[in-house]
Amino acid sequence: MQQFDAIWVNANIATMTDNGQPYGTIENAVLAVKDGRIAFVGPRAALPAFDALATPLYDVAGQWLLPGFIDCHTHLVYAGDRANEFELRLNGASYQQIAAAGGGIKATVAATRAASHEQLFVLAKARLNALLSQGVTTVEIKSGYGLDLASEQKILEVAAELSQHHPVSVQKTFLGAHALPPEYADNADGYIDAVCDMLPRLAALNLVDAVDVFCEGIGFSVAQSRKVFNAAAALGLPVKAHAEQLSNLGGSALVAEFGGLSADHIEFLDEAGIAAMAKAGTVAVLLPGAFYFLREQQLPPITLLRQYKVPMAVATDVNPGTSPLCSLPLMLNMACTLFRLTPEEALLGVSRHAAKALGLNDRGTLAVGQRADFACYAISRPAELCYQFGVNPLKQLIINGKEVNHRL
Amino acid sequence: MQQFDAIWVNANIATMTDNGQPYGTIENAVLAVKDGRIAFVGPRAALPAFDALATPLYDVAGQWLLPGFIDCHTHLVYAGDRANEFELRLNGASYQQIAAAGGGIKATVAATRAASHEQLFVLAKARLNALLSQGVTTVEIKSGYGLDLASEQKILEVAAELSQHHPVSVQKTFLGAHALPPEYADNADGYIDAVCDMLPRLAALNLVDAVDVFCEGIGFSVAQSRKVFNAAAALGLPVKAHAEQLSNLGGSALVAEFGGLSADHIEFLDEAGIAAMAKAGTVAVLLPGAFYFLREQQLPPITLLRQYKVPMAVATDVNPGTSPLCSLPLMLNMACTLFRLTPEEALLGVSRHAAKALGLNDRGTLAVGQRADFACYAISRPAELCYQFGVNPLKQLIINGKEVNHRL
Ligand SMILES: [Zn+2]
Ligand SMILES: [Zn+2]
Repeated sequence: MQQFDAIWVNANIATMTDNGQPYGTIENAVLAVKDGRIAFVGPRAALPAFDALATPLYDVAGQWLLPGFIDCHTHLVYAGDRANEFELRLNGASYQQIAAAGGGIKATVAATRAASHEQLFVLAKARLNALLSQGVTTVEIKSGYGLDLASEQKILEVAAELSQHHPVSVQKTFLGAHALPPEYADNADGYIDAVCDMLPRLAALNLVDAVDVFCEGIGFSVAQSRKVFNAAAALGLPVKAHAEQLSNLGGSALVAEFGGLSADHIEFLDEAGIAAMAKAGTVAVLLPGAFYFLREQQLPPITLLRQYKVPMAVATDVNPGTSPLCSLPLMLNMACTLFRLTPEEALLGVSRHAAKALGLNDRGTLAVGQRADFACYAISRPAELCYQFGVNPLKQLIINGKEVNHRL
Repeated sequence: MQQFDAIWVNANIATMTDNGQPYGTIENAVLAVKDGRIAFVGPRAALPAFDALATPLYDVAGQWLLPGFIDCHTHLVYAGDRANEFELRLNGASYQQIAAAGGGIKATVAATRAASHEQLFVLAKARLNALLSQGVTTVEIKSGYGLDLASEQKILEVAAELSQHHPVSVQKTFLGAHALPPEYADNADGYIDAVCDMLPRLAALNLVDAVDVFCEGIGFSVAQSRKVFNAAAALGLPVKAHAEQLSNLGGSALVAEFGGLSADHIEFLDEAGIAAMAKAGTVAVLLPGAFYFLREQQLPPITLLRQYKVPMAVATDVNPGTSPLCSLPLMLNMACTLFRLTPEEALLGVSRHAAKALGLNDRGTLAVGQRADFACYAISRPAELCYQFGVNPLKQLIINGKEVNHRL
């Protein structure tokens, strides 16, 4: 007789696998968990015999199970409040006036540098709780508001501590090349050297799962980004980039050249870049929250991405400057409403494709052997998760085979 | 010695009154409640002597108190799921194909007609809970998915039952002239006569606080709207309209002519209409959720509304067709981001001006004699409520002087 730790029955299961059905759906099905992994998923009739008395059984009465959502692009660990700047701008202040008033990313860097580990932990935990409460079970967190070794280390340590003390599983990305710190004003090359020097130190502390750069006219050049990627490659670390958000600089093709995980934003990405990504298996991470918040006009090249079969992920980009929107379900709606993704594409973007964007192949789908990270929703079809927003349909959240309290 | 039921101390209070400070702020202040009303609001030093042993005291340690939010435009009571239609459209189906598949408002009307009182109550209560959990203490609910006497009555009765069995206070609006029911296809004038016949019957049941029409090319003409308004005026009921959303038909000026409460949507409103509204004291209700969801391009005439000092309110327009977004804080963000309202304008739009849009003068500000409907937020300034979204800063919610559980 097979042993399971728990079984869910009478479920509609959107496995998000490629099983030939929309959403990889198996209707009226069963999911069984053992040792934190999915041990069975399929029709009731195929379930092996098990000890019915010793196995907790959840009858979900036709509700839907989906993989735990994966938010594959966030800047969750930061301090400081940019509401002031938001208000100044809406009252007519120019970017120059706001910069002069100490606004912009400089404000976040100063506040994050000044904050203690504990302060950052408390702030980030509230954001992580908000994501968890809406079905997120894996999150990526970037550094990039420290911009010196000690502060970048502090941010990544807080991310690591969250991973330990919070049910959501955390991937840590080093984004030293996010902006120019005041110490290196007008010396971007000097700062890139510093970043390349920080990277092995942070990697040695087990704080780096991937390396990111902001490759943009107002960020770092392709040549500078390449230097950082070379440093990452030397350590065997995967790379990704904030690329083609405001112009088509070629950061996405650079990521592809390094066989990287993802190119993120990519509103201005051209066909050559898309072809390169398709060849390299690089994921296109769409960030509709930043698009919305910045009132951008240039839509990402969705039709071409589809044509080249580049997997698309969808993430919050939670950050205080350009996406203070800490809700992945809201991004599902925005991905459909603003970018015209289909609900299936949007949901793949926070499950299977988001896992790929993080280089994780043990999650993002509901299949035997995968991590038992899944959610139960009171919905009549998966598209409802993209369509309606505000009434939370999440009924139960399982991480690593264990139910967690999502009413935080 | 003065008697209070409870006192809040060490509060920053955004009274939203016109006291010369942004947000009507009183810093480091005290608010006292007696018999469901605000009995004192002002600096600690001005608080009269009270029985310290007998009076519950909340030290909010610098957190902010604001009036309970008022969502002055919703279609909260409906049945049926339009996620299917949403998905069809994103997969390329035309409006004709969707209509042929039974989509559109017809689908909602059919589902709402078929639903029982109890089913509608359960569905609407979940939406009302979601609003409450984000600080809403008063909500307007429109009929308009029944389109016959019995079904319109059912919707308004559910709204009345919500008012009785839910802490949020409910205003009921009869929107019989929302769309043409199948029984009156190609006979809009006949249906308007039916609406004018329903109105006194529903009013006699105490189910109508105000009367609304959808005055639009795809809705009802100005002449038809006028008929409905005349019927409302005969009963002494205030009027409002869905107006100037897709074209400048003159519905807003018609509302103003009747001294009406509000003109809602108003993207295409012209200067003459604005002048008429200003003269009549009619509120402009902005609905950024529908603007966003429909990907509208035409912005409401904010600059002219400011110039003419027309009070602006902000509401969710929660409905299954054009704004399935049940979150007033999200509307605060959208009002600022999409419509460029200042945070103060947006917050006035869900407090003082929203109260005015409902004809209620006992709420929407924190002042002596007003209903004790207020919320305590862990924020550093009111603009934060418009700027960040997803991490709920609501710490305590008081309705009618009593704390309610907002963690629903
Ligand atoms: Zn980012
Ligand atoms: Zn409406």
